[in-house]
Amino acid sequence: MLSEKGYAVTQWVYEPELLEVLQRGRCNTWYLPGQELDARLRFTGDIAEAVREMQVVLWVAPVKVFRPLFARGIAHARPETIHVSAAKGIENETLKTVSQIARENREAETFCVLSGPSFAREVIRKMPTAVVIASQDDRAAAVVQNVMACPFFRTYTSRDVIGVELGGALKNVMAIAAGIIEGLGYGVNTRAALITRGLAEIIRLGTALGADPLTFSGLSGIGDLVLTCTSEQSRNYSVGLELARGRSLSEIMNTMKMVAEGVYTVRSARALSLQQRIEMPIVGAIHAVLFEGKAPLAALQDLMIRDLKQEAPGA
Amino acid sequence: MLSEKGYAVTQWVYEPELLEVLQRGRCNTWYLPGQELDARLRFTGDIAEAVREMQVVLWVAPVKVFRPLFARGIAHARPETIHVSAAKGIENETLKTVSQIARENREAETFCVLSGPSFAREVIRKMPTAVVIASQDDRAAAVVQNVMACPFFRTYTSRDVIGVELGGALKNVMAIAAGIIEGLGYGVNTRAALITRGLAEIIRLGTALGADPLTFSGLSGIGDLVLTCTSEQSRNYSVGLELARGRSLSEIMNTMKMVAEGVYTVRSARALSLQQRIEMPIVGAIHAVLFEGKAPLAALQDLMIRDLKQEAPGA
Repeated sequence: MLSEKGYAVTQWVYEPELLEVLQRGRCNTWYLPGQELDARLRFTGDIAEAVREMQVVLWVAPVKVFRPLFARGIAHARPETIHVSAAKGIENETLKTVSQIARENREAETFCVLSGPSFAREVIRKMPTAVVIASQDDRAAAVVQNVMACPFFRTYTSRDVIGVELGGALKNVMAIAAGIIEGLGYGVNTRAALITRGLAEIIRLGTALGADPLTFSGLSGIGDLVLTCTSEQSRNYSVGLELARGRSLSEIMNTMKMVAEGVYTVRSARALSLQQRIEMPIVGAIHAVLFEGKAPLAALQDLMIRDLKQEAPGA
Repeated sequence: MLSEKGYAVTQWVYEPELLEVLQRGRCNTWYLPGQELDARLRFTGDIAEAVREMQVVLWVAPVKVFRPLFARGIAHARPETIHVSAAKGIENETLKTVSQIARENREAETFCVLSGPSFAREVIRKMPTAVVIASQDDRAAAVVQNVMACPFFRTYTSRDVIGVELGGALKNVMAIAAGIIEGLGYGVNTRAALITRGLAEIIRLGTALGADPLTFSGLSGIGDLVLTCTSEQSRNYSVGLELARGRSLSEIMNTMKMVAEGVYTVRSARALSLQQRIEMPIVGAIHAVLFEGKAPLAALQDLMIRDLKQEAPGA
């Protein structure tokens, strides 16, 4: 998309085999089969080449490899380069988000996060899409907003970096739950209840961690949550679906080509909920299904028969 | 459901033909075909019989007939009867919600509204469902919460009556837009963006009218919005789908057996947005498509190329 807008874009590719495929055929047959990429787009296996001289660098690695990758990359970047992350998760060891990891480097004060409902395979087909770009630095966010906007890709800015990140990360946990509900044969009432009560948990934790609760009503919150919980295109949703069909987590993970971030995020979310003493029954249920051997159906039923409550904001 | 819980339930039926069907076969072949109703459920065509001596009366009429129907019914009710509305709309002539109409009667101080993602055909199949019951009167809300709760039907209470009502009403307008998006062949990114930016409009108007913005993150807000915008079971969604396929509104309305409230609500929403000077571009677009002859595709494209903005809460 950016290449078609006329920017000089270089894509760093981790897998040498995929790099060869891309350089030969200008089509990402692994992850976006059938889509021809812009002829001006360049590919490299050398991270220094991908970062050096760039005005904007977009980081799209899984969270568990972000820390070492960013350290390698930023060493080659200019000080004025704006770094943007599209990763969605929370580091298991430190319980930090990607912007918090990045800002351990003094060079990353203008760090931006990009989030929102945006399956790549629809963006490449020019389906109307809207995302949010959050930064503590208004100027950096505005640069990225204008660089990325086009008639089918609408960009909003935000200052609530942690809120935007937590929405994007935690929604993957709820997507596993949505997949379980589908796999158990439940209907759309149940799915809508899960999305809403999942959002309530996200708001509770997010607010405790300093986010603006209304950020979760935005594109990176409810927007991405709805997308991920209502589409089989989501990897996390697929994990839940397969769990409900009786497959084990290790079996499922072994057959997936891409990372289902939610499986890692649920550990961090569980740890944060205990640390912050925030009630997160759905996160607890998914943790129990993934790592404590609880049956999906029993987990769902236990959620339904809890004490009756007020639907207070964040209650 | 309530009859199965052991309550003595009498259902008032408007259409004499349907009343006969129900009394003969204990199955609502018009609206819930294939589902046997509880043997203890009684049916009547006499509103006095349905209301008299009841502890709780649940009103489920379309908004445009609620005012005269409620006036007829409440004349037969005991003063301590709790009235609950499941209607979702805004009266065109007065721009009032159902609770505002009801509370013109002094007897209706304990009036409750029931809302949330709850397609009847899933509730009758005992699919896990969660709803919210809002009232200015905590005791009334708690009574209804406990009367209606069962292991597959989870009830939350709220004090934000207007917020709960506006979420339920305005989501029908967004459902028409979601149907249009599907009918135009767009993807789930677009749908998620519509839901999120639609929610932002609902929050803006709702807050201006006195609602708590966080209510719209709840079951009657985002919960019902997601349900209605992601399922062809929704009548309003179907209206949008047919519009995008080129059928006229009058053609569509003539072939529908049930009322698509969103078609009426969009007029009230448009009037309220002008009266309150609240920017509601999606409501304006749907109004233009329904009543000003604008083409659905042009309406969508115009929404995408507006000025770039901040994603501020309610902005």
